Amino acid sequence: MQNFTFSNPTKIIFGKAVVAKLAPEAARAGKKALFVYGGGSIKKNGVYDVLTAALEKEGVAITEHHGVKPNPALSHVRAGIRKARTRNCDIIVAAGGGSVIDEAKAIAAGAKYGGDVWDFFCGKAAIREALPLFTALTLPATGSEMNSGCVVTNEETEQKYCAQGAPLFPRVSALDPETTLTLPRAQVANGAVDSLAHLIEGYFTTKDRDNGVTDEVVHALARSITASTERILKDPADYDARASMMWSATLALNGLAACGYGGLTFINHAIEHSLSALYDIAHGAGLAIVMPAWFRHHLETDGPARLEKFGKAVFGAKTAEGTVRSFEGFFRKAGAPVRLSEAGIPASDIPRIAENAMGLIRLWGLQHEQPEIEKILRRAR
Amino acid sequence: MQNFTFSNPTKIIFGKAVVAKLAPEAARAGKKALFVYGGGSIKKNGVYDVLTAALEKEGVAITEHHGVKPNPALSHVRAGIRKARTRNCDIIVAAGGGSVIDEAKAIAAGAKYGGDVWDFFCGKAAIREALPLFTALTLPATGSEMNSGCVVTNEETEQKYCAQGAPLFPRVSALDPETTLTLPRAQVANGAVDSLAHLIEGYFTTKDRDNGVTDEVVHALARSITASTERILKDPADYDARASMMWSATLALNGLAACGYGGLTFINHAIEHSLSALYDIAHGAGLAIVMPAWFRHHLETDGPARLEKFGKAVFGAKTAEGTVRSFEGFFRKAGAPVRLSEAGIPASDIPRIAENAMGLIRLWGLQHEQPEIEKILRRAR
Repeated sequence: MQNFTFSNPTKIIFGKAVVAKLAPEAARAGKKALFVYGGGSIKKNGVYDVLTAALEKEGVAITEHHGVKPNPALSHVRAGIRKARTRNCDIIVAAGGGSVIDEAKAIAAGAKYGGDVWDFFCGKAAIREALPLFTALTLPATGSEMNSGCVVTNEETEQKYCAQGAPLFPRVSALDPETTLTLPRAQVANGAVDSLAHLIEGYFTTKDRDNGVTDEVVHALARSITASTERILKDPADYDARASMMWSATLALNGLAACGYGGLTFINHAIEHSLSALYDIAHGAGLAIVMPAWFRHHLETDGPARLEKFGKAVFGAKTAEGTVRSFEGFFRKAGAPVRLSEAGIPASDIPRIAENAMGLIRLWGLQHEQPEIEKILRRAR
Repeated sequence: MQNFTFSNPTKIIFGKAVVAKLAPEAARAGKKALFVYGGGSIKKNGVYDVLTAALEKEGVAITEHHGVKPNPALSHVRAGIRKARTRNCDIIVAAGGGSVIDEAKAIAAGAKYGGDVWDFFCGKAAIREALPLFTALTLPATGSEMNSGCVVTNEETEQKYCAQGAPLFPRVSALDPETTLTLPRAQVANGAVDSLAHLIEGYFTTKDRDNGVTDEVVHALARSITASTERILKDPADYDARASMMWSATLALNGLAACGYGGLTFINHAIEHSLSALYDIAHGAGLAIVMPAWFRHHLETDGPARLEKFGKAVFGAKTAEGTVRSFEGFFRKAGAPVRLSEAGIPASDIPRIAENAMGLIRLWGLQHEQPEIEKILRRAR
């Protein structure tokens, strides 16, 4: 077990009818909110009405910034920053999934920064302050509601990059599982894949064989994610399965599931971000394609020990290859693609995808060269 | 899954040689520390020298308050409060186990309060502020290093009571597993029993059958505690087992292991506090006596479902009674007493023990009468 620091100041309010409780929390921090949301799903599931009414009741003035896309775009982030400045917003309220929260984080940091917000993503500047952020989560997947990272896509340069900093932790996040009852099946699948991916990045980063409690916690969360997803696919109205999935996805990337692993290399994410940046496919779908290929590469380079341990505990698999097949089986059952061809991406694009991924790999200081990434991607044809 | 709020602001610095890192964290909050510790074990394991040197290097003046006992005494807490006030201490630094940290918390709250500190324990006042607290943990057991509760014994009234409040969360806690390598075997056992007890209080409070992810997390922590304790008993120098135990015990009572359970009734603790208050036995030893008896009572009143689920996941037990026997077997193997007689407590004292326990049971609003508590205790003869 390696040394680690764990610190997570986000307050979570979880359960039925908790969205309105976000308003008094936000009102204590500011009275002029930039209200960030996506394409309008929150108008269908009731979150928009509940939250705007509660904020108005608390005397919080709202400036809307909507239309956040999956793989949130830098141009839209910059527009949000301009709006927050023009209207002198002193807090950010975000309602939606990980993309909405990520864009809200980028705006929160950018609004307090003299330079261009992209500086935070390409390593030119560190995030020293941000507007206080309050979130209502409606899609369990990214964990952004309880961590200090965010991902934004620069459409001009085709780069899907990350920024991180303690000021980005949401102050309070409201998680109402009932707001996820109407999620489309594809988003259920993508959320399951993404949260599992967060667990395995740390689990397969460690070089220690002995990670006692954190291995146990990762297995516990992975079992919970796979079991609750299968229940949700059978019965979308299953509240307890929705609740279990929502809290599991949050815990999968709030720091807990990597304690003692000596960091997370995030190699699957580095490769997937290239797919999202080039083809604008859903992050979860991209990960479902990359992970099995990367697992088989890991098996070749690092041996079967970690795959065997994970697979035995989570899927009841007997071999490392059995673990990879269990992942593929779960992803397929959920409806996610597990090969590039299934997402309509031609094998001839592999060099271009790998080249794009190398941007992040170099920025993060990971020890991989382009031929290795191409080799992994060829396993995903 | 019931609604819940999760909020835990304590920063954890974990691993080898981390104790000195507490000093710069403390120095940012204040320059006059009350330094709280126990009977001198920290002088043997090196924590005293490392921490005092680091604090002095940061320009923090130290007023010592040592001699904290297991089951910390109200009179000693009051003496610490007087000392903190006289010396105008602006921070508290505590080094030791749960008793030391609990006494430090009581002093931190009492120093900022006009009335008597016992008011917080008997429900007469709420904790609204406290001196900032920094801890170096040397005994994994109580979880006090990452929660907002504390337990103190009023020697005059023979009451072992609790106080709680958000200002009591330590700002930063340093957890170095190497400082636990020299723990006496009895303290290893007591820590294992106590941390398991924290897990089962929530697990058996819930009336839901379906607690997905939190049940999984509880099982994971319980497996980690039992497995690492067995390794430590075989090889006290096993660093990874010490590390796993230390982090597991922290997570067992930092809020995580009760999310969605609808609260913790803490009935085993209510009964045990009576044993500690009347006989000054170690908290872990008292819990090892109470828990099997309470489990058998629970089996009679609530049926086998929860005992079966827990036992299957943690011990591989096949029946509810098999689960109780597995607990007893684990406690015995660790060297803890599992019957009143093994701790030299006569069965004729049962009415007196139950009467004392009723004080806490009434204060906490639990639905139990004295005859029921006596019945449970008779199972522990």
